[in-house]
Amino acid sequence: MARRGEKIGLWLIGASGGVGSTVALGLAALCKKLTGPTGLVTEQPQFGGLNLPPWNAFVLGGHEFRKESLIAGVHHLSKRAGLFDDKVVRACRPRLVADQRNIRPGTTCGLDPAARRMADFDNAVQDRSAAAAVDRLASDITDFRRRKHLDHVVVINVASSEPGGRKKQWPKTISGLRRSLSRRGASPVPTSSIYALAAVDAGCAYINFTPSTGILVPAIRAYADERNVPYMGRDGKTGETLVKSVLAPMFAMRNLNVMSWVGQNILGNRDGATLNDPATRRAKIATKDRLVSQVLDDTVTSHVRIDYVPSLADWKVAWDYIHFRGFLGVKMSLQFTWCGSDSVLAAPLVLDLARLAVLECRRGVGGPMKHLACFFKDPLDVSRHDLFSQWVMLMTHTTAAHS
Amino acid sequence: MARRGEKIGLWLIGASGGVGSTVALGLAALCKKLTGPTGLVTEQPQFGGLNLPPWNAFVLGGHEFRKESLIAGVHHLSKRAGLFDDKVVRACRPRLVADQRNIRPGTTCGLDPAARRMADFDNAVQDRSAAAAVDRLASDITDFRRRKHLDHVVVINVASSEPGGRKKQWPKTISGLRRSLSRRGASPVPTSSIYALAAVDAGCAYINFTPSTGILVPAIRAYADERNVPYMGRDGKTGETLVKSVLAPMFAMRNLNVMSWVGQNILGNRDGATLNDPATRRAKIATKDRLVSQVLDDTVTSHVRIDYVPSLADWKVAWDYIHFRGFLGVKMSLQFTWCGSDSVLAAPLVLDLARLAVLECRRGVGGPMKHLACFFKDPLDVSRHDLFSQWVMLMTHTTAAHS
Amino acid sequence: MARRGEKIGLWLIGASGGVGSTVALGLAALCKKLTGPTGLVTEQPQFGGLNLPPWNAFVLGGHEFRKESLIAGVHHLSKRAGLFDDKVVRACRPRLVADQRNIRPGTTCGLDPAARRMADFDNAVQDRSAAAAVDRLASDITDFRRRKHLDHVVVINVASSEPGGRKKQWPKTISGLRRSLSRRGASPVPTSSIYALAAVDAGCAYINFTPSTGILVPAIRAYADERNVPYMGRDGKTGETLVKSVLAPMFAMRNLNVMSWVGQNILGNRDGATLNDPATRRAKIATKDRLVSQVLDDTVTSHVRIDYVPSLADWKVAWDYIHFRGFLGVKMSLQFTWCGSDSVLAAPLVLDLARLAVLECRRGVGGPMKHLACFFKDPLDVSRHDLFSQWVMLMTHTTAAHS
Amino acid sequence: MARRGEKIGLWLIGASGGVGSTVALGLAALCKKLTGPTGLVTEQPQFGGLNLPPWNAFVLGGHEFRKESLIAGVHHLSKRAGLFDDKVVRACRPRLVADQRNIRPGTTCGLDPAARRMADFDNAVQDRSAAAAVDRLASDITDFRRRKHLDHVVVINVASSEPGGRKKQWPKTISGLRRSLSRRGASPVPTSSIYALAAVDAGCAYINFTPSTGILVPAIRAYADERNVPYMGRDGKTGETLVKSVLAPMFAMRNLNVMSWVGQNILGNRDGATLNDPATRRAKIATKDRLVSQVLDDTVTSHVRIDYVPSLADWKVAWDYIHFRGFLGVKMSLQFTWCGSDSVLAAPLVLDLARLAVLECRRGVGGPMKHLACFFKDPLDVSRHDLFSQWVMLMTHTTAAHS
Repeated sequence: MARRGEKIGLWLIGASGGVGSTVALGLAALCKKLTGPTGLVTEQPQFGGLNLPPWNAFVLGGHEFRKESLIAGVHHLSKRAGLFDDKVVRACRPRLVADQRNIRPGTTCGLDPAARRMADFDNAVQDRSAAAAVDRLASDITDFRRRKHLDHVVVINVASSEPGGRKKQWPKTISGLRRSLSRRGASPVPTSSIYALAAVDAGCAYINFTPSTGILVPAIRAYADERNVPYMGRDGKTGETLVKSVLAPMFAMRNLNVMSWVGQNILGNRDGATLNDPATRRAKIATKDRLVSQVLDDTVTSHVRIDYVPSLADWKVAWDYIHFRGFLGVKMSLQFTWCGSDSVLAAPLVLDLARLAVLECRRGVGGPMKHLACFFKDPLDVSRHDLFSQWVMLMTHTTAAHS
Repeated sequence: MARRGEKIGLWLIGASGGVGSTVALGLAALCKKLTGPTGLVTEQPQFGGLNLPPWNAFVLGGHEFRKESLIAGVHHLSKRAGLFDDKVVRACRPRLVADQRNIRPGTTCGLDPAARRMADFDNAVQDRSAAAAVDRLASDITDFRRRKHLDHVVVINVASSEPGGRKKQWPKTISGLRRSLSRRGASPVPTSSIYALAAVDAGCAYINFTPSTGILVPAIRAYADERNVPYMGRDGKTGETLVKSVLAPMFAMRNLNVMSWVGQNILGNRDGATLNDPATRRAKIATKDRLVSQVLDDTVTSHVRIDYVPSLADWKVAWDYIHFRGFLGVKMSLQFTWCGSDSVLAAPLVLDLARLAVLECRRGVGGPMKHLACFFKDPLDVSRHDLFSQWVMLMTHTTAAHS
Repeated sequence: MARRGEKIGLWLIGASGGVGSTVALGLAALCKKLTGPTGLVTEQPQFGGLNLPPWNAFVLGGHEFRKESLIAGVHHLSKRAGLFDDKVVRACRPRLVADQRNIRPGTTCGLDPAARRMADFDNAVQDRSAAAAVDRLASDITDFRRRKHLDHVVVINVASSEPGGRKKQWPKTISGLRRSLSRRGASPVPTSSIYALAAVDAGCAYINFTPSTGILVPAIRAYADERNVPYMGRDGKTGETLVKSVLAPMFAMRNLNVMSWVGQNILGNRDGATLNDPATRRAKIATKDRLVSQVLDDTVTSHVRIDYVPSLADWKVAWDYIHFRGFLGVKMSLQFTWCGSDSVLAAPLVLDLARLAVLECRRGVGGPMKHLACFFKDPLDVSRHDLFSQWVMLMTHTTAAHS
Repeated sequence: MARRGEKIGLWLIGASGGVGSTVALGLAALCKKLTGPTGLVTEQPQFGGLNLPPWNAFVLGGHEFRKESLIAGVHHLSKRAGLFDDKVVRACRPRLVADQRNIRPGTTCGLDPAARRMADFDNAVQDRSAAAAVDRLASDITDFRRRKHLDHVVVINVASSEPGGRKKQWPKTISGLRRSLSRRGASPVPTSSIYALAAVDAGCAYINFTPSTGILVPAIRAYADERNVPYMGRDGKTGETLVKSVLAPMFAMRNLNVMSWVGQNILGNRDGATLNDPATRRAKIATKDRLVSQVLDDTVTSHVRIDYVPSLADWKVAWDYIHFRGFLGVKMSLQFTWCGSDSVLAAPLVLDLARLAVLECRRGVGGPMKHLACFFKDPLDVSRHDLFSQWVMLMTHTTAAHS
């Protein structure tokens, strides 16, 4: 149960991006009672008996390789996407300034050439090897824990998507991996995995809210298991895929034969710009696309498209067209248009995940937090993609383990 | 378990309408293996161990007050709405001709003036009182059972919607009700309830697939309980409401604040024409509208509109706009357009319900079949409207009671 | 041609409502070069040679019976609907404060009971008769003209919609009408017509941007003709109807047979609240609905629905479903969803109309300005509803009369 | 003017495809008065005084390299897409059988490797050179003219789209081109241009209803001008682009600033399968995409996507999202979903074009028929893409030249 005076660190990788700066603003607004529980899963009555850490127990920190500050990130969203109430932003400004002091420079090790072209790295340190980067990043986190007297730190990756890595070339053991990381030249694993390894080295819970590789390099994952660190991922289920994860089971329950499911996503934020790179886009689409074939079947013609439309800023518009056959072979259709702000949908889930990970940290239980599947597009070690089964998993786990 | 040679009667009230004639065509096509399991809930593996009656165990009969035959009903749908494959229709024709011989004249007792204006009654008998109608209708069903050597008969109301009755004036006991029904003049209960009483008198399972009153006259329901007859209703959950019953829980699970939910339904079939009558429309909308306030909350601005658009024939198009608020008060939206054939969506569920009711008949268990809630917009005695909870109810019941 | 130092009054009826306050903000922002020409028809090159009055020639004034000021109106839109840039609002504040001094109290004469229930009248004068109201309102305008040394004043009705008047009871001559107006008790004509008469009495151009009656009381219109006052209306074509006015001609040109055209409008502003009154709604729908039957034909099943959805604030969402038949009788569909801010769409057209009316004032030409048809849902004396024919009318007129 | 007994040949390239077989069925149905004028532009009153050839003046013929017959093409559409009334198909069958006798084998010369992979060529002749193909195809047409005693023959390309050719390598003179065509090996021009040259050699009017190159090889076009043959193209404006060609001008007329226009097209016919080839898709998208930048401006973010979704058969569903900015910089949106049958939309326009081309043949006027711009996505020598300006061009031409 929650100890009196417990303090929790929330360490964000990609801290000043859309999601990161919304998390910071939201946390500040919650502490000041300037916003309500809307969008926060764990603020519902079902979670009342779990002794979840209160919002004012959290201290924010993170890594960021761009020069943009948290406040600049918030202003960017306010100005371009019209998201936030000016009064709330003004009232939270002092807290954001304080949080900014906990942001440490990111690394460019392992970065893909495409990402390298589009981002600025004014705040990145040029680490002399990937191993050196891991050490530096891990000590940033442990320093944060020590300085702030934190009981637990949860590390969450909310950086831009990266292209899929080439799995076969990864060393199989953690020691082999470390040797390989200490060589000069291109890192054998992508940036997200360097951060993941740093999190495990620092003994922190690790959550991957993006489709990037993160902890899924087998040697890193095995090492996390060994160190008894809880982890989960990947790719937050915030919008179109969330809707798909209830509609697909609906068709299945009625035994309707979905012939085709076409999705067109347009978005204008940094993630959209990153997704203009074909390899990154493929990685993202793979996690979005899995659901239909899992819940329905492999014969469905499934297309997912993502296009970068700068005028939308942080907004994402998704159109899905579902062509299905009913009794006696009659063809029918359902189409939907989702219009949401990605950062605003993601941020409360990041806060929920941090809270729920703390429960495992308190119990000292490591390994994959499969009961958090409902938060992810591609939940680790979980083959059920329908939201309701995943919800039951969450309810069952929290009831059994924590009440 | 299913006995060898078991024979089941499926008695449809409003037999030659869109739903009724599609049920007849579908049953014939299933028996001839001209169509597959698509759209039939009970053809899924989960229902495999229940010894459900096979399709060729069913014999079709029913009441109809219009002159139109089953074949004419099927042709009507084929020609105006382009629904069926000509080859299937031709191959099923002999069976439809045979089924037609089991259709008996309906009654006009208790009919609302609006319905009276729009329908033709060339096949109706002018019963001299509502009580006489009940007797005649019940003996039609018992004759059918005897003639066809049926083990069980399931009566399902698939007639057009009727306006809501005035509940207060109903006699409280079945004997009081029968006295009132035997008087000349306007029936104290609507037509659907006259049919429901006849079904109970005949000792049959009764299911109300429409928003009409049916068995919900308290004296009739109490009498059904007393006679240990299984029953359920009302208003089949076929299209827009089905989608709402998965989307509303999704918003709830994510703690998103739905501010407004607006639905516009347009349809061109007989039901649409009937719904042009304001009182009937209100009755229909009431069952459609309940879901949002139950799953979400009472503060949602909820509008449901239904308009009659003859060019759509049996097609129904529904547009729903959901306006919701996320974290930090940001407003977002989801909209969907459903385009489906009402008859084709309803017919397989009617067949499923008949099968599942037989299980209760075999066990001799009467009363409300609450485990069938997932089939209805306004499930009797069940306050949960989300499809997934309802599905769990069905799975739990069938596993516990019948496996 | 534009005289040096020419000054123009723009007098708004309902000055502090959504449209009125957006006009005030926009005019201020244009004068300060804080906003560009987007949305202003007359800022296009085709209008370059007409010597239209520049934006800084305009002085704003108007009538308003609610207590809300222009600034409050702007803040209301900013806060509830998230419309404007805070910097622009702050920079324009002094000008809005100055404009506010030209706002005079409105009248409640002729107001419908429904409107009476929903509005506050803290700024209304209780005129002792409709005739007294006309005199007071007219002298407000002539005072404004004198005080501000204005060359021309254009009066534009941007108040909330009112229910349709009962035409038959109107006196046929202006003297008969004035006699009737001078009696105590309920006004024989609606409020909008009292304002219209005041405008004509003051010798001003009059434009009705709403579906209200305004100048369309025959005696008033005849009097305007006699006084050689230019006028036009009614009901600004801003959103859904604008789209219809290009799509309907498209179907016509391809000889496609539109069978049904269903429109569902939801909106959350004051106009939406007013439209909750069935009579007002009917009046509004009548002007929206005319287009389809005029451009296509009378056999189209046409439904237009309007629902009040407060969460949308100043936003209007309209869904239209068009069901049409092509070659060989094949049925197809087009559906669209329009999502726009009513005030922001209307305001620039109000400014355009003021400019274009000045051209007629300068020439001393009175009567209906039929060439302005493209701005209206129900253009006076013009039967063509397609936008392109209307555009050609505007181009032809401005080229012939003013270049 | 129309001569008594005038006979017209309509020669279709790709005769048994979706469009071709619908043209054949439609022409038969029109002659038998089994279908009405819906979808036929030239059946409108404005075209009444032009002495257009009546439908029974037309004789159908064409080239086809697949084995599928006209009747098979019609059945394919009926069965897979549910398009036609069985009675009409049965009644037209004898005429389709007769038409089939006028179908000659196509050529595979100049065919792209991608097209080569997906089509069957059971009805293709293996011409020994492109020049030999031109000669054979031209003599097929002249034979048809002679045998059927035709006054004029109009050749219309309705075959599948082909990838864009490499223009620079084309010989500049017709004699140079012919030399190049007579060499063995790959044809220097694509198949569509081989057919176009054959049409010109046969002295026929030529119309390109596809985005393929056709007559746009400069040497072929110059030769057509020299021979005084009328021609026009390219790519019929049937669906999504038709809608765009009225909506884009609407935004322009209101001076609204379209920031982004995204279109997602899904379709299931042969054309869709062909468009799975990236090069072909690029060629198609280029003609679809031109409109937005021409009517609006070059700064619009414009994406057009096309995906092959077999379950849609001949249906095409297009979703367009238009993001625009209004007055004071406020962002708004319009989205539409078009659901139409490509073949059924195209076929009547093919018939219209044949009729209108005959007018030019009668007058002996060759060259580009620019007045037919309203029928094409990418009208030859015409830079106006808005439907209404194009309509005025058609009205002006037909009034001036033919009444």
